Amino acid sequence: MSNSKKIKAGIIGGAGYTGGEMIRLLLNHPDVTIAFVHSRSNAGNPLYAVHADLLGETDLTFTGELSNDIDVMFLCLGHGESKKFVEANDIADHIKIIDLSQDFRLGETVKDRVFVYGLPEMNREAIKTARNIANPGCFATAIQLGLLPLAKAGLLKEVHTTGITGSTGAGQSLQATSHFTWRSNNISTYKVLTHQHLKEIRRSLQLLQPGYTADVNFVPVRGDFPRGIWVTSYQQSDLSLEAAVQLYQDFYAGHPFTHVSTKQIDLKQVVNTNKVLIQLEKVGDKLVIHSIEDNLLKGASGQAVQNMNLMCGLDETAGLKLKSIVF
Amino acid sequence: MSNSKKIKAGIIGGAGYTGGEMIRLLLNHPDVTIAFVHSRSNAGNPLYAVHADLLGETDLTFTGELSNDIDVMFLCLGHGESKKFVEANDIADHIKIIDLSQDFRLGETVKDRVFVYGLPEMNREAIKTARNIANPGCFATAIQLGLLPLAKAGLLKEVHTTGITGSTGAGQSLQATSHFTWRSNNISTYKVLTHQHLKEIRRSLQLLQPGYTADVNFVPVRGDFPRGIWVTSYQQSDLSLEAAVQLYQDFYAGHPFTHVSTKQIDLKQVVNTNKVLIQLEKVGDKLVIHSIEDNLLKGASGQAVQNMNLMCGLDETAGLKLKSIVF
Amino acid sequence: MSNSKKIKAGIIGGAGYTGGEMIRLLLNHPDVTIAFVHSRSNAGNPLYAVHADLLGETDLTFTGELSNDIDVMFLCLGHGESKKFVEANDIADHIKIIDLSQDFRLGETVKDRVFVYGLPEMNREAIKTARNIANPGCFATAIQLGLLPLAKAGLLKEVHTTGITGSTGAGQSLQATSHFTWRSNNISTYKVLTHQHLKEIRRSLQLLQPGYTADVNFVPVRGDFPRGIWVTSYQQSDLSLEAAVQLYQDFYAGHPFTHVSTKQIDLKQVVNTNKVLIQLEKVGDKLVIHSIEDNLLKGASGQAVQNMNLMCGLDETAGLKLKSIVF
Amino acid sequence: MSNSKKIKAGIIGGAGYTGGEMIRLLLNHPDVTIAFVHSRSNAGNPLYAVHADLLGETDLTFTGELSNDIDVMFLCLGHGESKKFVEANDIADHIKIIDLSQDFRLGETVKDRVFVYGLPEMNREAIKTARNIANPGCFATAIQLGLLPLAKAGLLKEVHTTGITGSTGAGQSLQATSHFTWRSNNISTYKVLTHQHLKEIRRSLQLLQPGYTADVNFVPVRGDFPRGIWVTSYQQSDLSLEAAVQLYQDFYAGHPFTHVSTKQIDLKQVVNTNKVLIQLEKVGDKLVIHSIEDNLLKGASGQAVQNMNLMCGLDETAGLKLKSIVF
Repeated sequence: MSNSKKIKAGIIGGAGYTGGEMIRLLLNHPDVTIAFVHSRSNAGNPLYAVHADLLGETDLTFTGELSNDIDVMFLCLGHGESKKFVEANDIADHIKIIDLSQDFRLGETVKDRVFVYGLPEMNREAIKTARNIANPGCFATAIQLGLLPLAKAGLLKEVHTTGITGSTGAGQSLQATSHFTWRSNNISTYKVLTHQHLKEIRRSLQLLQPGYTADVNFVPVRGDFPRGIWVTSYQQSDLSLEAAVQLYQDFYAGHPFTHVSTKQIDLKQVVNTNKVLIQLEKVGDKLVIHSIEDNLLKGASGQAVQNMNLMCGLDETAGLKLKSIVF
Repeated sequence: MSNSKKIKAGIIGGAGYTGGEMIRLLLNHPDVTIAFVHSRSNAGNPLYAVHADLLGETDLTFTGELSNDIDVMFLCLGHGESKKFVEANDIADHIKIIDLSQDFRLGETVKDRVFVYGLPEMNREAIKTARNIANPGCFATAIQLGLLPLAKAGLLKEVHTTGITGSTGAGQSLQATSHFTWRSNNISTYKVLTHQHLKEIRRSLQLLQPGYTADVNFVPVRGDFPRGIWVTSYQQSDLSLEAAVQLYQDFYAGHPFTHVSTKQIDLKQVVNTNKVLIQLEKVGDKLVIHSIEDNLLKGASGQAVQNMNLMCGLDETAGLKLKSIVF
Repeated sequence: MSNSKKIKAGIIGGAGYTGGEMIRLLLNHPDVTIAFVHSRSNAGNPLYAVHADLLGETDLTFTGELSNDIDVMFLCLGHGESKKFVEANDIADHIKIIDLSQDFRLGETVKDRVFVYGLPEMNREAIKTARNIANPGCFATAIQLGLLPLAKAGLLKEVHTTGITGSTGAGQSLQATSHFTWRSNNISTYKVLTHQHLKEIRRSLQLLQPGYTADVNFVPVRGDFPRGIWVTSYQQSDLSLEAAVQLYQDFYAGHPFTHVSTKQIDLKQVVNTNKVLIQLEKVGDKLVIHSIEDNLLKGASGQAVQNMNLMCGLDETAGLKLKSIVF
Repeated sequence: MSNSKKIKAGIIGGAGYTGGEMIRLLLNHPDVTIAFVHSRSNAGNPLYAVHADLLGETDLTFTGELSNDIDVMFLCLGHGESKKFVEANDIADHIKIIDLSQDFRLGETVKDRVFVYGLPEMNREAIKTARNIANPGCFATAIQLGLLPLAKAGLLKEVHTTGITGSTGAGQSLQATSHFTWRSNNISTYKVLTHQHLKEIRRSLQLLQPGYTADVNFVPVRGDFPRGIWVTSYQQSDLSLEAAVQLYQDFYAGHPFTHVSTKQIDLKQVVNTNKVLIQLEKVGDKLVIHSIEDNLLKGASGQAVQNMNLMCGLDETAGLKLKSIVF
């Protein structure tokens, strides 16, 4: 694509983890050019002063200024900050907003902007014509992709879910639970059965299976690795394994990033990619669903690019053919 | 204790992980002397040729010979091997056997030897007079200690359990899932809802709560750390948090290694100790129980020493006041 | 590039670590198509049966057959196996060979095939017209890129070098030093002052600085991480820091993957990229040179692609704009 | 030992890493009782509120008060804080002080208190009669124990040393280089050739080999593990390997914690113990010395206990027979 035809993207909050991933992805995206990376505290510094891995990749600097000469704006801000940012700034009407916070995932609006929930495997058609996207949460993405086919079929029951997340899910700030000495070789849980992502998960499930009121019991676990989310869910089910596999394969047919594995999966199959792998098991009357992702990619910035691709009429996978770390 | 009064211990299968831990514990045990460490394949070699950390601790060598001039024999053999070993060898009647395999945990006998299930928090009095002990499994110990107080009170219902284990749980043999390149930063599950320890768990639960037939749904997870087991279980419960804490504190009163924490726990609180920590949460109508241990100590060799202490009339904690690794 | 114009590549030994990386890189290379992936032991299996992260990326299968309808052949075989393979098979004259083993790095030939040492920062022009490439070793690449500018300037003296490697450097086979339980949180050394890569390093240094006979003292260290190589070298030097930085920047000007950082570097800046970062320090009369890379990319398969790009007249960076793992 | 005869110890700065290790060691020391643990910021809190692993071990609380009814005082304060503390407080003359900071390692005094450098392998007799001890630094201990036998024999020359430290060496404070996300799987260096421990190292070396003025070139490396220090040093030497081994064995004969291994060593042999292992190699005319320790034990609190044992006429190993973590 000639440079003049490229989509111009602005990134707000470019100094954090999801902002950094957004930069990494867009720098290599064949159809996009980064118009600016906004960060008030880092204005004037080269991007690689914060994201040291970008040394040799780009000489771009952070800016404290905004411009409306862009097509898409990515909001990589903390929860609560996105709404404030849109309220406080004049963002031209033609600009599509993709928000990575949780500010608009439950139907909230701001300045007449309505946000489509950006989970392509559920909402692809609506995303294609959306003006604004509320990008799903990291745990929310992995858990939903494990449950949506059941909900669509009206087969969802009380669900028991364990999710194990890498430390990047907790962001860049220094805290006791992100101290290397503490976290290495360690395991702990947090927000057991009360994680905030349960709200957006429940909203999606009820859209697909109206009247679903059973519990999604979710135990979030802090893992001692930096990237990735592992989710195992199970519920009572009358489906045979074969029928369940068929149900999931049918649901995800045509979706380029979500695949059903018939072999045992492990987390590093998806780390540093935009993929979700799903594996099913049937034990007695229980259906077990494993679903895994990279929390910063399919769980955040990668899915944001996927949404942009859909909104802008690009190939859904453009800029997202990523080499797995694998080891 | 004068050396001549010390308990003489023999270790069978001293070259494996649990055998090594047994040696480390007994070398520092004030009331025990190691009579021999048996290993056919390593006979004649110094212990530190296999357990390199023992360099400077002892000049003992492995032996391929057995002697009946001992008081206690620890069987640190693979599952199925313990039964064969007892059948094939003349073990004097006065020798107490503590078996770390799963060969005798469900009531099996060999040569008229009957085995008491060696979970001191459940069976302390029986252990004190036992001639033979079936030492519980690592996951089985952590899961049971999280559930026994409920069972004792007749309050156990269908339970949902996640257990995350360090790599030492899989033993010393080289296999794809123990390759550093694969396992570092990785997560995976195995034997989901079918783990073999469920049998001994169910047996104990039914002893305390006769007629208990609900499911214990157990998802075993391979963690990317070497030592420790994290277990989170939950079930529906009408108990308040206060009542639950009281129930657990009462149950474990007088048990020196099992403690109820009223603060959030993390795995490294117990690594390299014989302790189990339990933390309770109440969310809606669900009671959540976290229970953690070192899989090689309270989950194996440490508990074996605890059982020996009880059988031999020693202080239950003798030789088990271990410095936590903590970091 | 239209598919019919794409370069056709064959990969020999596609089931190992470097073979897997080669597949990952070439699958996303805009100008290359993978004609076949050869593996005798895996013939008929899909690539993702061995390289599980490729699930959803490709349906290609391993083959046990060879074809001469290719432009480039990558030999991803064990040391000693490449020479045997070329001797035992009819490889058409028009096929360019890029060998990742150490079989041809010291000037060895086979069937009239002469091999150019494939270090683009030293040999770019020769590589462009080469028929066969001996791809450098992983440690050899990182160490040389830290020393070549000094050698070129005739300023190299006795050098003191420490190199720390991730576990992937030791390959896929199961061995005691790759057991997760052993290697996690552990450090050890091997082949101290005798590492085999010293031969190819010395050869390059003497080409640039004829008469160089001082020692390169190299301490190789096994690190407890899967990917990457850290090298720190130092020697006596009269250069000021500024002069040294200028020397290095001049040497690497125009080389797209090798960059001089004026800030402190850390290994994860380059993991999962084809980059080498170099940082210089001057302390007293010692010049310190840090040089880092991903051992499987710039240290193996990435550099092999870089060499192919040069040999085939492609952009040197084609297919090598990789997203860093960074975390 | 009856309780009334036990040595009474006070710990100052008990909330940090070395303070915590001091508590853990003294709680299990057969001849010592902890009189108080001082921490201004934590006064009134139970020790396990800060050192969570102590739950179930002790109900002691931190105090903000000092008492002179002790025999030994351990200063576990930051560098610069120990001197201030002794100046600002009335510490009775009969109290022996063991300082873990670097405030008194180079011959500094305070209030007529003279400090003996507390490296038992060098100064055991002086320590036995000392009133005050300057406990050596962590890197300083490992490096010196690798070099002292050569210095004693007058054979030390210019030395090249790499040291790799776990994250606990950097203490408890949150900083960018201790963030789990950054440090996991990462390597970096710091204070290259300028580390502050070089001063105390040089002081010892010159005491043993008067006139030694050659460089000790030390490259400190941040490792991605929590505990332990690996050191490799080498120098030119005319000694044969056999002669060197003999020299080291003779030097360390009778020292219970420092051992010469004739097999390859690895760091986890000593983690969570007070041991130092040394391994020698001879390559060409270079003598290579590997020396390893646990930075918080032999490199800090364990050595402090060893010094106390010597000062108080106890067995040098009392309270220091620790179970290795090994895995």
